[in-house]
Amino acid sequence: MAATVTLLTDYGLTDEYVGVCHGVIARIAPDARVIDLTHGVPRHAIRSGALALRRALPFTPPGVHVAVVDPGVGGPRRGVALRCADRLLVGPDNGLLMPAAEHLGGVEEAVDLATSPWLLEPVSATFHGRDVFAPVAAHLALGEPLADAGEPLAPEHLVPLVLPEPHREGVALVAHALAFDTYGNVLLDAAVGDLPAGERAEVAGRWVARGRTFGDVPDGELLLYEDSSGALALAVNGGSARDELDLRLDDEVRIA
Amino acid sequence: MAATVTLLTDYGLTDEYVGVCHGVIARIAPDARVIDLTHGVPRHAIRSGALALRRALPFTPPGVHVAVVDPGVGGPRRGVALRCADRLLVGPDNGLLMPAAEHLGGVEEAVDLATSPWLLEPVSATFHGRDVFAPVAAHLALGEPLADAGEPLAPEHLVPLVLPEPHREGVALVAHALAFDTYGNVLLDAAVGDLPAGERAEVAGRWVARGRTFGDVPDGELLLYEDSSGALALAVNGGSARDELDLRLDDEVRIA
Amino acid sequence: MAATVTLLTDYGLTDEYVGVCHGVIARIAPDARVIDLTHGVPRHAIRSGALALRRALPFTPPGVHVAVVDPGVGGPRRGVALRCADRLLVGPDNGLLMPAAEHLGGVEEAVDLATSPWLLEPVSATFHGRDVFAPVAAHLALGEPLADAGEPLAPEHLVPLVLPEPHREGVALVAHALAFDTYGNVLLDAAVGDLPAGERAEVAGRWVARGRTFGDVPDGELLLYEDSSGALALAVNGGSARDELDLRLDDEVRIA
Repeated sequence: MAATVTLLTDYGLTDEYVGVCHGVIARIAPDARVIDLTHGVPRHAIRSGALALRRALPFTPPGVHVAVVDPGVGGPRRGVALRCADRLLVGPDNGLLMPAAEHLGGVEEAVDLATSPWLLEPVSATFHGRDVFAPVAAHLALGEPLADAGEPLAPEHLVPLVLPEPHREGVALVAHALAFDTYGNVLLDAAVGDLPAGERAEVAGRWVARGRTFGDVPDGELLLYEDSSGALALAVNGGSARDELDLRLDDEVRIA
Repeated sequence: MAATVTLLTDYGLTDEYVGVCHGVIARIAPDARVIDLTHGVPRHAIRSGALALRRALPFTPPGVHVAVVDPGVGGPRRGVALRCADRLLVGPDNGLLMPAAEHLGGVEEAVDLATSPWLLEPVSATFHGRDVFAPVAAHLALGEPLADAGEPLAPEHLVPLVLPEPHREGVALVAHALAFDTYGNVLLDAAVGDLPAGERAEVAGRWVARGRTFGDVPDGELLLYEDSSGALALAVNGGSARDELDLRLDDEVRIA
Repeated sequence: MAATVTLLTDYGLTDEYVGVCHGVIARIAPDARVIDLTHGVPRHAIRSGALALRRALPFTPPGVHVAVVDPGVGGPRRGVALRCADRLLVGPDNGLLMPAAEHLGGVEEAVDLATSPWLLEPVSATFHGRDVFAPVAAHLALGEPLADAGEPLAPEHLVPLVLPEPHREGVALVAHALAFDTYGNVLLDAAVGDLPAGERAEVAGRWVARGRTFGDVPDGELLLYEDSSGALALAVNGGSARDELDLRLDDEVRIA
């Protein structure tokens, strides 16, 4: 029985790109179970994809985890496959895989895929999901050794992902809008434990109720809560906190 | 062999929420076949989700059927699992499951999931798809007894779904716009048999042709027809009946 | 073990239509692996669907390949199943299947599904994906003979797909915008070999760099390149060539 393969990309579902990756995997590893984590990562948003991968992985079976958000496809950036505990991560070496890798305890073994024997030749310059990452993942799902996937690479040479850092200004906590979900909920780079005690907080100059879930505030009201990934988050019950606070990615959110 | 699990939610496919539910199921019931019925139910539209579930279920294999459209997540509303003939339905107790349950002949056994031994702990306040409904469905797909899923609940205590009722005004039939599909076709809460005989009908004050399929009227023209679920419906050939008639959910549609 | 079934439609993922097709297949052929190639073909865009099918098929396992982009559903157009080398294609006889069939070497055997014993009765007038194409595909995936799917049909009676033809005007190549992907990349009906030598080309009156991949030009700049399907294509690094050049389907693109 082949391992589980998960896919996370910014390909969207309008074109046949995702279906083609499924096809490539099925030709090589017909028994592999393939789970689509999401293909709705905003285009080229490496950090959004990296954080979604980190949030999702603890809930999937161990296996081979492909992620492709790849503005540098076909250029000098490396394609890599990494071993982290009982997982194998496959994707571009642009930071995308690193938060998940660190969450899993760090990279134990890394391979550069440039000369992998498993590439789909001729390798296109613009679709490495099909020609590099899917076939490599399928061979790994069959149980072929990671060392056979390409040339060894020292893990310390992998490209890190830079994230903004929350900080204190006096009593205030200055966090950042790390990600938005489809409902307009805002994920912050802080935890509930970072907050002072109290039932309300001042967020971006407005008083906001603290609660557990959306229904704890009236329809249309702002809520500060612990999201299902354990991070501090902002929501509007039945609405969009992103729109309500007019936030963009990385914007500072001041909480006091 | 585990049973089939179907999923229907309003999570959308932009985030990793659906993928995470697949992961949770695969960890518990690796052999279960999971079918996505749709994740495009409009946010919080319990009735749209309930009707889509009722329309879809007769065409799926018997199994475990999860539905999550859940504006009250984390609040006092119950999570439930229901037996209806050869099917098990899992989701919030907010009416979402009831049209499908009635279509299957009614609820024979109901369980409150609040103290289920199968919950993914710690249960988050905002993502019961992951922490409650997916793991319960996976255990049921393995063939574990429904009675083990939680505390017994009298079916008559389940929250019903209130639907508008079509009625007659003289010779006219007053139906409602129950649902729209992605093409702008309008599903009504009436059947072709409710109509008077004739090749045309007056709908919202306009003469509309009756026919079997879209091509029975010229491009851009309105059509009154029996939709693939057996309901009376309105379409525009190559266009959108919703836009053409400027309809919103529940709007009355007068047919004479 | 049942064969692989692939699906490509313009149904979108907002409604339960695709999930219902999966359900129908799973009831008849529970062991079939089903791969969604895409359901995001623009509504009624037969040619876009036909080209996506042709691009995707070489990367999938041989099997049964369903495609439904079907503005004439329920009207006089035929439903058909075709044998092409080691593949079976199933869908409406409106040209949708023909580019893939030709790419596979042509149609060796064709069957008209009008009187197929495998239809889901009563056949609706508007949802042949559910009532005709999915059940026929599932029976074929079980290994039942194509000849049993309906009445034999001479392949030369199949409806062809008309595509625009690129041509020369003096030294210039006049190609057409055959398809757009979700990023706004523009697929042309010409190959890199059709171009004169050189590092730049004049496209629609503008100088455009030639390159291998998006990063070969600065952010926001136009690029002429060989796309992953081997066709000549236009992109904007980090942007949309369709928007930049204000192109619609079939528009002429003059390259000199």
